[in-house]
Amino acid sequence: MTISAYDHPFLSGLLGDDETASYFSAQADIRAMLGFEAALAKAEAVHGLISHEAARHIGTVCATFEPDVLHLRAATARDGVVVADLVKQLRKAVGSPYSDCVHLGATSQDVIDTSLMVRLKAIAFLFSSRLSQLATAFDNLDAQFGKNVLMGRTRMQAAIAITVSDRLRAWSAPLGGYRDRLTQQRFPVQFGGAAGTLDKLQDHAPAIRAALAQELGLSDTPQWQSQRGIIADFANLLSLISGSLGKFGQDIALLAQAGDEIELAGGGGSSAMAHKQNPVAAEALVALARFNATQLSGCHQSLVHEQERSGAAWMLEWLILPQMVMATAASLRLALELAGHIKRIGQRNS
Amino acid sequence: MTISAYDHPFLSGLLGDDETASYFSAQADIRAMLGFEAALAKAEAVHGLISHEAARHIGTVCATFEPDVLHLRAATARDGVVVADLVKQLRKAVGSPYSDCVHLGATSQDVIDTSLMVRLKAIAFLFSSRLSQLATAFDNLDAQFGKNVLMGRTRMQAAIAITVSDRLRAWSAPLGGYRDRLTQQRFPVQFGGAAGTLDKLQDHAPAIRAALAQELGLSDTPQWQSQRGIIADFANLLSLISGSLGKFGQDIALLAQAGDEIELAGGGGSSAMAHKQNPVAAEALVALARFNATQLSGCHQSLVHEQERSGAAWMLEWLILPQMVMATAASLRLALELAGHIKRIGQRNS
Amino acid sequence: MTISAYDHPFLSGLLGDDETASYFSAQADIRAMLGFEAALAKAEAVHGLISHEAARHIGTVCATFEPDVLHLRAATARDGVVVADLVKQLRKAVGSPYSDCVHLGATSQDVIDTSLMVRLKAIAFLFSSRLSQLATAFDNLDAQFGKNVLMGRTRMQAAIAITVSDRLRAWSAPLGGYRDRLTQQRFPVQFGGAAGTLDKLQDHAPAIRAALAQELGLSDTPQWQSQRGIIADFANLLSLISGSLGKFGQDIALLAQAGDEIELAGGGGSSAMAHKQNPVAAEALVALARFNATQLSGCHQSLVHEQERSGAAWMLEWLILPQMVMATAASLRLALELAGHIKRIGQRNS
Amino acid sequence: MTISAYDHPFLSGLLGDDETASYFSAQADIRAMLGFEAALAKAEAVHGLISHEAARHIGTVCATFEPDVLHLRAATARDGVVVADLVKQLRKAVGSPYSDCVHLGATSQDVIDTSLMVRLKAIAFLFSSRLSQLATAFDNLDAQFGKNVLMGRTRMQAAIAITVSDRLRAWSAPLGGYRDRLTQQRFPVQFGGAAGTLDKLQDHAPAIRAALAQELGLSDTPQWQSQRGIIADFANLLSLISGSLGKFGQDIALLAQAGDEIELAGGGGSSAMAHKQNPVAAEALVALARFNATQLSGCHQSLVHEQERSGAAWMLEWLILPQMVMATAASLRLALELAGHIKRIGQRNS
Repeated sequence: MTISAYDHPFLSGLLGDDETASYFSAQADIRAMLGFEAALAKAEAVHGLISHEAARHIGTVCATFEPDVLHLRAATARDGVVVADLVKQLRKAVGSPYSDCVHLGATSQDVIDTSLMVRLKAIAFLFSSRLSQLATAFDNLDAQFGKNVLMGRTRMQAAIAITVSDRLRAWSAPLGGYRDRLTQQRFPVQFGGAAGTLDKLQDHAPAIRAALAQELGLSDTPQWQSQRGIIADFANLLSLISGSLGKFGQDIALLAQAGDEIELAGGGGSSAMAHKQNPVAAEALVALARFNATQLSGCHQSLVHEQERSGAAWMLEWLILPQMVMATAASLRLALELAGHIKRIGQRNS
Repeated sequence: MTISAYDHPFLSGLLGDDETASYFSAQADIRAMLGFEAALAKAEAVHGLISHEAARHIGTVCATFEPDVLHLRAATARDGVVVADLVKQLRKAVGSPYSDCVHLGATSQDVIDTSLMVRLKAIAFLFSSRLSQLATAFDNLDAQFGKNVLMGRTRMQAAIAITVSDRLRAWSAPLGGYRDRLTQQRFPVQFGGAAGTLDKLQDHAPAIRAALAQELGLSDTPQWQSQRGIIADFANLLSLISGSLGKFGQDIALLAQAGDEIELAGGGGSSAMAHKQNPVAAEALVALARFNATQLSGCHQSLVHEQERSGAAWMLEWLILPQMVMATAASLRLALELAGHIKRIGQRNS
Repeated sequence: MTISAYDHPFLSGLLGDDETASYFSAQADIRAMLGFEAALAKAEAVHGLISHEAARHIGTVCATFEPDVLHLRAATARDGVVVADLVKQLRKAVGSPYSDCVHLGATSQDVIDTSLMVRLKAIAFLFSSRLSQLATAFDNLDAQFGKNVLMGRTRMQAAIAITVSDRLRAWSAPLGGYRDRLTQQRFPVQFGGAAGTLDKLQDHAPAIRAALAQELGLSDTPQWQSQRGIIADFANLLSLISGSLGKFGQDIALLAQAGDEIELAGGGGSSAMAHKQNPVAAEALVALARFNATQLSGCHQSLVHEQERSGAAWMLEWLILPQMVMATAASLRLALELAGHIKRIGQRNS
Repeated sequence: MTISAYDHPFLSGLLGDDETASYFSAQADIRAMLGFEAALAKAEAVHGLISHEAARHIGTVCATFEPDVLHLRAATARDGVVVADLVKQLRKAVGSPYSDCVHLGATSQDVIDTSLMVRLKAIAFLFSSRLSQLATAFDNLDAQFGKNVLMGRTRMQAAIAITVSDRLRAWSAPLGGYRDRLTQQRFPVQFGGAAGTLDKLQDHAPAIRAALAQELGLSDTPQWQSQRGIIADFANLLSLISGSLGKFGQDIALLAQAGDEIELAGGGGSSAMAHKQNPVAAEALVALARFNATQLSGCHQSLVHEQERSGAAWMLEWLILPQMVMATAASLRLALELAGHIKRIGQRNS
């Protein structure tokens, strides 16, 4: 049963990205959620809410615990979130006398949002590295072909001659800013308890949250459970990236159509016409850019997140954000591939 | 690797739909594509383009052929579509002397779009049946509780008393029209060849297309490969359905919040507060409605489908339409479940 | 103060449409709302709720009454709708003893939604007529150039030669279906009273609603005040039209870029390059198609219309639908203009 | 002829914002475009491209020149942009011998994009100031009612008691970050000439661009004419603001529905029910948030901006961005109004 092209048995060859997908497997999510529970226990032990023995035991169990996923599925259908049942299974695995020390003062949203942040942080570094590689690829093209002449085109019409450097700059210039934003982005822990007030931790709450953030490599900020700007803003950055790469793709497709200004290696075959070389990666970049531009709207709809926690607005993020990440990952992969396939661009200035 | 909540190991318990998902497996797609090739061979044999022996042999092979999916994946990455490699594998399986009779005069888009139509037709009947069940469920609630009193609310404020029948009508009234549209919808064969002109079939083209359509249970229309209104319009119908069900969900969530006007069975547990009963299905209906409303935009962007076939606009449909189908399927499933969980609605008119 | 390009002092030259805009002036809205009040009084007189004298007097006043628009503006700021103050002003103009007979049993939404339906019906006929003209324009091009040869292009690459007729069919084929839908579309009266139950009209309610609908030339259906499928579905049709015309525009822009397959009259000048002829109308068609595809999402978000009347979901329609109508109007106007500017398409088959 | 609610004769009372609208009048645009031409002449005089006399004369004319707007409208219809005709009219007003010194080396996009940046910069400061006022209003509410008790609600269900401070923090916390981004945002000059290469200015190009930027109070960056991230990213910030205010509005509407946890002054009247007080501003905030979330998608579609300048992608921005600015302006105005209307929130902790 595969619905999404991003993890489809054959479409993912074109539109997927194995490296990024590994962060959005159920396994990766479960491991990150158990990582939250282990880190929470550790932080709570430091501040005396539970014993160090309890925290150690919970940490040990979390490191290897494999929950019954079918049971999680049935429970998610009932509860609307996976955490209640995951914690129940985990408490059973932890056993007496420490089972009550699991998940102390936390709520489902803390676990799910924090698991997401841990994984997005890793992905941000991955994407940042790909942006660097792509900038290098454009630099190399510039070194090789930058002085070649290209017809500048405005409003779909030949305008005046430009250099290949001019065009490359339009593709390359935005990348540095995106890379900086990815690496400087703060990925905050989410920790608020039942209604965001960490009511069960009393005076220890800020210190435990800080320790939890540090343990997980996240930044420490007060709970943001109903303030979803962080998600919507990250989605914006994803769509900026895929949008700029979509411009690159569109330009390559138009160059390939005109025919004499570019030479591409690769390119897909046709079932009907053996002679055709389709600029497959270029087209896919346009599709992925438009996909993310479409999705972004949904992430912003989720800003209208009512009261202390909105099930509806939150689920909408679950349905959309992972796919925006995948679309961006595929865009970066394909842009790198496409840049590598440019055998010549522009014409020698004679 | 699971990216989409619709086929996620545990989220699909809440947001998936097994029955509908079976139509969007790679297997179902492959079977429908092979069904196209078999039907095409049969239609071409009737009109003398290939021999009846060839058609029979192709039909036999198509019925059981299992392509190498990993190979399809690699080829899709290269070609941008799966069909070139699928046909190549199929031709090899068919073998001499009939291999050249496979896929005669067809192109990738014919196979992929027609496979989609065959499956959407089946799904339309499934959805139509669920809409009928839901209308019946609302009728039953009306019979039980229709005369109960409910506070009518306009602009989020108590207005005047209405009956439960009045509210039920707002939920139920649109369903009949949707059901009619699903069952009356024409699902056309797509058959155009390399550039839409069926150039290789010459005078036989219209007759072969008609025979192909009949064989597959689809309607016969000239190729629509660059006219994507049929996809955008079907997506609109999906979003109308999930949107109306989202209104039902939102209303139930608001009733559940007010507390005294509805009694619900089921409802999800909380990891932090054992006493809570969350109206999980109601919230999910709102999320799915907003999901589809978001996606619909992308399907309409694909109407700008350049020239005889746009790779970019077409891929955008692949990325979006199956998920809209799944969101609608989950909406229908959850709405039925939610209607069944209403133990009381409104208050006895004393 | 002009925010929208559709009625901007200079941008409307490109993106506006005077004929359609006249239906969305405040004056046109006020006239249609007063028309509702007059028709309602007439229908209520027939069924004995008010006297014939009252109805006649109300009708006379409504025919010429000019409300104080600045006062309406201030009241709209306070009330969120214009109707409460409009009715107050109208009642004062009607004067004793008939002032109480104005707006009897109706509510704001009845007036505003019905005013919209009356105007959309007129616009549907206007658009239908333009679609016919456009189909004729394509037929004429077919008669002149249909046998000319054009390079068929799939996935942005030259594929095989097609005829101009083939390409024209892709532009023209969807128009007939859109025209049929526009003319067959039912535009229903909205009449529900305070909470949709027409509680003040008791047994007369259905008959009065039917009479009201007949008087206004609308179809008679039970109130749909919280069932917004009719709006979302009409928006879909608008976007299908502008989307298909966007495909036409995109194709023309690509033909104009290639250069030798089309000859266009008109085309815009450049402030920097006197020699350029920009395919302005073609570009605008693409922009308008993508605009409507974007907006459609908002109309579908409004399907989640809570309870008996949602101020938020309803206002969202006000912000979006008129502009979708204008974008479609401009698309139709520009497509007609662009078709008329084609001096030659394709190349003589030698 | 008014299409947009933001400048509608009566709807603008609710959904408009006079202060912000003044920046989007045709007059304001024309003045900013003439300001560009004056500043350009001045910068070019400094670097010896034209004489100081020419620059002074052009500056004097630009300060008071009133173009023929009807002529601009007709020209925009033909050219797709207003600048060619505006420059022609301006050159005539400047007269011999300096007319050729007008617009030297610039192109339409330089004028239009830079005019937009000048106005967006002013608007950013306006919005920043409103955000500060709103934060102060929330602080005041906190001082008055912060210790009051409110039922915390998660997933539309009563959870545990929180304080009014807790809820206020969710409304107020995001505002500071938005304010910082508005004031730190760089608004770059756009200056690239015909195809982005400032070909006519040769070695002087960077210095003239820097001088032009300084003169206009903008930041100096190489042309970004086909890199539209700056527009899409600003649109994102607008939607983040209106989205967070939409959450505030939704929360107030839900509080007002529950009834005993908030006391509001103002609130709109109903044409059918004199007793009702509708939370009009709260609903409008939700509508405006969803409006901007919808529009944002279109701004991101425009990132796929082909070649050196895309008429289609650029026009799409014209159709969308001004309205996003207006929606955000109205949101800020309404949020301030709504915060001021809160007479009591929460219940005294007894």
